[in-house]
Amino acid sequence: MSLGFEILARDGAARVGRLTTAHGAIDTPAFMPIGTAGTVKAMTPEGVAATGARIVLGNTYHLMLRPGAERIAALGGLHRFMNWPHAILTDSGGFQVMSLKALRTIGEEGVAFRSHLDGSRHLLTPERSIEIQHLLGADITMAFDECAPFPAERDTIEASVERTLRWAERSRAAFTPRPGHGIFGIVQGGVHADLRQRAAVRLVEIGFDGYAIGGLAIGESQATTFAMVENDVPMLPADRPRYLMGVGKPADLVGAVKRGVDMFDCVVPTRSGRTGQAFTREGALNLRNARHADDPAPLDPLCRCPACTGFSRAYLHHLTKAQEILASMLLTQHNLTYYADLMADLRTAITKGRLSAFQLSETNP
Amino acid sequence: MSLGFEILARDGAARVGRLTTAHGAIDTPAFMPIGTAGTVKAMTPEGVAATGARIVLGNTYHLMLRPGAERIAALGGLHRFMNWPHAILTDSGGFQVMSLKALRTIGEEGVAFRSHLDGSRHLLTPERSIEIQHLLGADITMAFDECAPFPAERDTIEASVERTLRWAERSRAAFTPRPGHGIFGIVQGGVHADLRQRAAVRLVEIGFDGYAIGGLAIGESQATTFAMVENDVPMLPADRPRYLMGVGKPADLVGAVKRGVDMFDCVVPTRSGRTGQAFTREGALNLRNARHADDPAPLDPLCRCPACTGFSRAYLHHLTKAQEILASMLLTQHNLTYYADLMADLRTAITKGRLSAFQLSETNP
Repeated sequence: MSLGFEILARDGAARVGRLTTAHGAIDTPAFMPIGTAGTVKAMTPEGVAATGARIVLGNTYHLMLRPGAERIAALGGLHRFMNWPHAILTDSGGFQVMSLKALRTIGEEGVAFRSHLDGSRHLLTPERSIEIQHLLGADITMAFDECAPFPAERDTIEASVERTLRWAERSRAAFTPRPGHGIFGIVQGGVHADLRQRAAVRLVEIGFDGYAIGGLAIGESQATTFAMVENDVPMLPADRPRYLMGVGKPADLVGAVKRGVDMFDCVVPTRSGRTGQAFTREGALNLRNARHADDPAPLDPLCRCPACTGFSRAYLHHLTKAQEILASMLLTQHNLTYYADLMADLRTAITKGRLSAFQLSETNP
Repeated sequence: MSLGFEILARDGAARVGRLTTAHGAIDTPAFMPIGTAGTVKAMTPEGVAATGARIVLGNTYHLMLRPGAERIAALGGLHRFMNWPHAILTDSGGFQVMSLKALRTIGEEGVAFRSHLDGSRHLLTPERSIEIQHLLGADITMAFDECAPFPAERDTIEASVERTLRWAERSRAAFTPRPGHGIFGIVQGGVHADLRQRAAVRLVEIGFDGYAIGGLAIGESQATTFAMVENDVPMLPADRPRYLMGVGKPADLVGAVKRGVDMFDCVVPTRSGRTGQAFTREGALNLRNARHADDPAPLDPLCRCPACTGFSRAYLHHLTKAQEILASMLLTQHNLTYYADLMADLRTAITKGRLSAFQLSETNP
């Protein structure tokens, strides 16, 4: 078996599952912290694990440029390099090279681009993307895809979807199956339900170990994102994990879980933590706000993380104002803990058949 | 007793001691990490304690401006504010307001200055400095002093020493004794042995709980620093702790311990950690150097810290090149661990009567 996936409970479209990889099991629904350059920013690996996360995302684009995929492979792979004993999903690099805009050219073969670091020329193809992900040692490899911009003409998106499907076949062919490792296909098609359905059908024909819902959360409304999730989920095999890419804020996660999504990644909790933003059971807070300057209360009295058990809002405010590194460390740890606990609460609600009544405020015990 | 200080072993001028404060005991010789703005930069308090440190230094100047001493007092004092259960020594603010140069005016009353943060006007006097340190809840308070620039005319330094002695009397008078708390006087006099001796005699007449050797490590040679330590130590009470301010690099610490110093503080290990510099049993390393890019070896194979037990030099090189926060976190933790272990090794050498043979390389087991 490439990747084990056992469904333990269902509630409506939602399900609780266990995804088994070469580097341990992940309870789903799960949120994957972003470890762009071989580190979840401002966190030790022990700190990431302490939040409850058992899988992180690594970025092919960043790692291929620095320090280089062959170098990481020679050093024993990404798990050993970053001292993360749990699972790793790597993206394909597609999304990030597309974002380079003026620095890249898309062709049938792949994407030619210049490094944002030193201007050096590179070609990323489906075959090279998969090779890099193998070199990194990803437990979950993503097919190389194009994420069309939003908004875009339907014709543009349709051509992009077709190319992404051809790239998906090449990615699948380039992937070397190993126990505990798998490859996910990515449904594209922007906000066009029929294009997304066509993509899903073709990806299932190719056959992947899991399926990502891509090309969303890039400018369209939350209602549209949810509509596309509702459109895609029934097209995907019920016994395989579903991963909504680049999503999102807490309410986005709750809504997508209710619609059958099992996995998420997003920069929001980590990036917010580095800019003084905290997610709490009482809503989002900006710690830079002067109203926290004299507040002896913890950030979130119900949170188990070090920021909440050890410090006051006044102290966290001070750290953010003084631009201390500890502010990024503590708020990132808090936000990732909040996200992990939210996912755990959602799993509990599904298991108890109470998901329809789940509100964010109900993450309170 | 204000501050307990028990001498447990002697070897030449050096001694092993135990300094007892309201927030626990400190084995001396001890190095005190700098916690400028209520945080040892890039470290959690648990991380600082894990290095072995049991006392940190807080900066009166920075804390009085932001977040403010009265605010910290209202929040329960600096220990609670920064969640540091062990001892804290606060400086007097004198050294840092003097460094403001164009922004400050020195008079008999004290130093008038403008904040580097917002230009606001402040007056720091001996009485206000002690009051701030009381508000912060320092276990060890430092007398308000002037650190004359180096080099300077003898007349300038002599006038400065005399004013510092008058300020020392005012500081001592303003200090409220409490169990487990104490105040240290500071010997000034630049590189003039006779001025320093005069200062030491007068400080001992006033009577302090410990004595700092100040005004050194600001540009003079290591040989001169050591000569001044040899000059000052015999003038100070044998049963009270001696603190060499602002020192230093590992070899400086070894030399000063051999000459009878018990306590140190310096930005070197923490600042170096944030710029890719590491102290190891094989000497100092610059992790930004490309020669580390492919090195699977740990930073220091004999070190017990998380940076050395979990990661390769190649990974630490990558983090420094990518300017990841984790680079600062890991290298700071390593450097403080190196310093703490160096002090522990020195204590062992003194206890065994082997200090004269102690070389830095002998920090290897």
